[in-house]
Amino acid sequence: MSDPVFFSPVRRIDAAQVAELCGASLGNPESAGVEITGIASADQGGPGDLVFLEGRRGAGLLPKLRADAVLCTADLAPSVPAGIAVLVTPRPQQAFALIARHLFPDATKPGPWFSAVAGISPSAHVASDAQVESGATIEAGAVVGPGAMIGAGAVIAPTAVIGPSCQVGRNTFVGPGASIQAALIGDRVIIHAGARIGADGFGFVSGRAGLEKVPQIGRVIIQDNVEIGANTTIDRGALGDTIIGDGTKIDNLVQIGHNVRIGRSCAIAAQVGISGSVVIGDYVMLGGRVGIGDHLTVGSGAQLAAGSGLMHDVPAGERWGGAPAQPMKSWLREVSLLRGMAQERSRRKNGNG
Amino acid sequence: MSDPVFFSPVRRIDAAQVAELCGASLGNPESAGVEITGIASADQGGPGDLVFLEGRRGAGLLPKLRADAVLCTADLAPSVPAGIAVLVTPRPQQAFALIARHLFPDATKPGPWFSAVAGISPSAHVASDAQVESGATIEAGAVVGPGAMIGAGAVIAPTAVIGPSCQVGRNTFVGPGASIQAALIGDRVIIHAGARIGADGFGFVSGRAGLEKVPQIGRVIIQDNVEIGANTTIDRGALGDTIIGDGTKIDNLVQIGHNVRIGRSCAIAAQVGISGSVVIGDYVMLGGRVGIGDHLTVGSGAQLAAGSGLMHDVPAGERWGGAPAQPMKSWLREVSLLRGMAQERSRRKNGNG
Amino acid sequence: MSDPVFFSPVRRIDAAQVAELCGASLGNPESAGVEITGIASADQGGPGDLVFLEGRRGAGLLPKLRADAVLCTADLAPSVPAGIAVLVTPRPQQAFALIARHLFPDATKPGPWFSAVAGISPSAHVASDAQVESGATIEAGAVVGPGAMIGAGAVIAPTAVIGPSCQVGRNTFVGPGASIQAALIGDRVIIHAGARIGADGFGFVSGRAGLEKVPQIGRVIIQDNVEIGANTTIDRGALGDTIIGDGTKIDNLVQIGHNVRIGRSCAIAAQVGISGSVVIGDYVMLGGRVGIGDHLTVGSGAQLAAGSGLMHDVPAGERWGGAPAQPMKSWLREVSLLRGMAQERSRRKNGNG
Repeated sequence: MSDPVFFSPVRRIDAAQVAELCGASLGNPESAGVEITGIASADQGGPGDLVFLEGRRGAGLLPKLRADAVLCTADLAPSVPAGIAVLVTPRPQQAFALIARHLFPDATKPGPWFSAVAGISPSAHVASDAQVESGATIEAGAVVGPGAMIGAGAVIAPTAVIGPSCQVGRNTFVGPGASIQAALIGDRVIIHAGARIGADGFGFVSGRAGLEKVPQIGRVIIQDNVEIGANTTIDRGALGDTIIGDGTKIDNLVQIGHNVRIGRSCAIAAQVGISGSVVIGDYVMLGGRVGIGDHLTVGSGAQLAAGSGLMHDVPAGERWGGAPAQPMKSWLREVSLLRGMAQERSRRKNGNG
Repeated sequence: MSDPVFFSPVRRIDAAQVAELCGASLGNPESAGVEITGIASADQGGPGDLVFLEGRRGAGLLPKLRADAVLCTADLAPSVPAGIAVLVTPRPQQAFALIARHLFPDATKPGPWFSAVAGISPSAHVASDAQVESGATIEAGAVVGPGAMIGAGAVIAPTAVIGPSCQVGRNTFVGPGASIQAALIGDRVIIHAGARIGADGFGFVSGRAGLEKVPQIGRVIIQDNVEIGANTTIDRGALGDTIIGDGTKIDNLVQIGHNVRIGRSCAIAAQVGISGSVVIGDYVMLGGRVGIGDHLTVGSGAQLAAGSGLMHDVPAGERWGGAPAQPMKSWLREVSLLRGMAQERSRRKNGNG
Repeated sequence: MSDPVFFSPVRRIDAAQVAELCGASLGNPESAGVEITGIASADQGGPGDLVFLEGRRGAGLLPKLRADAVLCTADLAPSVPAGIAVLVTPRPQQAFALIARHLFPDATKPGPWFSAVAGISPSAHVASDAQVESGATIEAGAVVGPGAMIGAGAVIAPTAVIGPSCQVGRNTFVGPGASIQAALIGDRVIIHAGARIGADGFGFVSGRAGLEKVPQIGRVIIQDNVEIGANTTIDRGALGDTIIGDGTKIDNLVQIGHNVRIGRSCAIAAQVGISGSVVIGDYVMLGGRVGIGDHLTVGSGAQLAAGSGLMHDVPAGERWGGAPAQPMKSWLREVSLLRGMAQERSRRKNGNG
């Protein structure tokens, strides 16, 4: 099989333009005209590529660096091999991302899959009273329910399902096979393949007939600029709303229970589980596989280490870890205490004590 | 964008009718005629709303309560602000759920998404020899395979897939994008969006050619009144059947391996993982993210705390927690012992000991 | 409802043929002509069934064994009840799998769901410039994007989506509702229902506007003979490729981050989470719910116990467990030390010390 290209840069730029775009300074001015035709990670660069380097990892890659231009911090610049354009900036990764978005604008906002032009595919199923703004794209096999509204520039990918009366904002992408129920989705939102927005929450009471269902009649509100990972599930509110704040990014296979409220610009890694009615502030970072018990509060700016199991509220700005989770310092102290005791005991048993 | 309504109550009732329906007693008889037009959580109530209060959480919400009627326990009744109909009952949440089901019957049994009337959508793909009972609904983009049987009152949502020879019982709902293979599904079952019933289990043997597949030829049996969460996966049996018992409720992103047998009325929270051939009794409760090793047995009425990692059988009625899991009391004792030792050591280091 | 049959054996064989096929020796030569019409697990066998027994579990099942033939190790053979054909082999499960594949060849390579003959369903949506080899099957509701290539013998199940320019190899199965983006898939690969191959990785940098997206422009490479579980997610590379090596088997609900490279013949159990840029060798075994931090390396032949949380590299061939994970022996030592201390303290408190 031949090698397909999934993305090509839409424009070519030279090193001087890179410097101008991201505010870097060109370390070797004779390289101003070096042409950039692609981007790569620092261990996989080649001719025409721009790469970035920072920190200890970056320093380690310096000797073998192969690329035509590199974004790096000032301390690394002197060690860049000759013949590579050096672009000095305090935040190489951020500058690199900016250039990447400049060269590959389509990769930041998934576009139509099947049509060169926007519009409703003849193979899509759109209810007669759905409102699809001009400039929206509904792809083959997608389903848009009665009363739904789809904003201009939105893309509903193949086999995605938009439920009755749901609203999808402008320039929002709903990935293949994803489904939206009982939800209002803002502008510039990216919802990846297979995500499930607005299914019923897990609400039951014990009754004579066993577990009886508590009707789930609330909604999901997804604010602007949110990104939601593949196969992630966000339940509708039981009575009120489940809310995901502006600019929050959620990875794959995350579970968000009913009535959860998450603030702005949070980063939530894969396989996190957030129980019902949890309240999370702004700029919170949750590592992979964190679990949070119901009705808990996580203050703004708090960070939870991967794998934490939260059973108490976390104050703003604190870093916690472990299961049951506790402040990072205490957790690491316990880990190291137990390790030390076990090693000492093992030494004694072996007659070295 | 305007504010869509996803559910409206199908009927109006007054406080006296609420009392009669759920067996509560009206604390202030002059409120008998207060009209209930909606339901809300106790912290978000407003005019026309019925809310419920119980326990310490409920007591804390009393002073600011805004609603027209409240279901609460006898101890809280005297403190309900004036002007609110007081409905006293020993189990407020259960009574509230009953009233909610009365007002929003559609929310307990997901109905057709796209059609006011039942029937097979012209945009559905139904095999010529599938048997669809009159009164079933097959929505746009849904696929029903050869030899499949769909019961009266069942709803197959858009883009759901029912595999060859599968049976879906009466009044059962299969959500958008869900897929059913090698399975018999009972009556009044709710399968949420993206759930995967009957994919192959994880069965391999080491052979000359690496890992060789063990054919997975068993089935999945889902009994009546089961609910299965979004993107949950339940594998078909390797040789025999995987069985989910009557009335058991399963949350989102749960994994259930091949040949697992689960009893009646269990509650299984999100992201639980149950390995192959595990046997679980009746009325078992598994907290979020519990993991259970293969071939283990969990006795009826047992409860596992969120995040537990089970490596041994759990006797009926016991409560276990931790990883590796152990009886709750022992686990909490270990957590507290280690915490105490680490704190003492830290105090000594800081010269306070 | 009647009882549907999802798989029937395609041929009948007798005990002598079983022995010949898998290299077992027939313990009771008078049973050579016993006809095998089905297979079952050792606790559920019946007339006509072949079962297998090994180890302590197998010995326990011997007294009640009901079947017409049994594959077992030499030590168990004398205790097999009279009237059952005894087939002695050092690896009963492996031999059983071989016979199962012989009787149920369709169960090792999922075939067309809806069509007796291969071809493109009139209800499928295939882009005009997609290349579908003769002998491939595209089922109802499936979507194949522009420039995609589908190999001979491949089956694209109902509502599966193959993205633009993706390649699906020969005799590969893509399950119902699965979606493929930015990916090259090899031959004889099995991708189960709802799996998400090639969605964007979780890449963001902090900028003035909050979290800014790092374009994800890499690919996913799935080599031959890989199996991928239901609702599993494998992200495309950020810049380079995410690679799954030949013969590796992945269970349900697994998350594999961008730029992860996994070797040959690994076994990865359900709900495992592998962070970005992790490198995993060959023949690695990851138990259920293992979590691996980003940029870590797991050497060939290493094994991680279920629930492990990895924060450091694991050398080739080692067995690790716990969270944070450490060599198995050290982990178990810590578990037992803490358990012993807690029990001793409890005894003392109760006045028994």
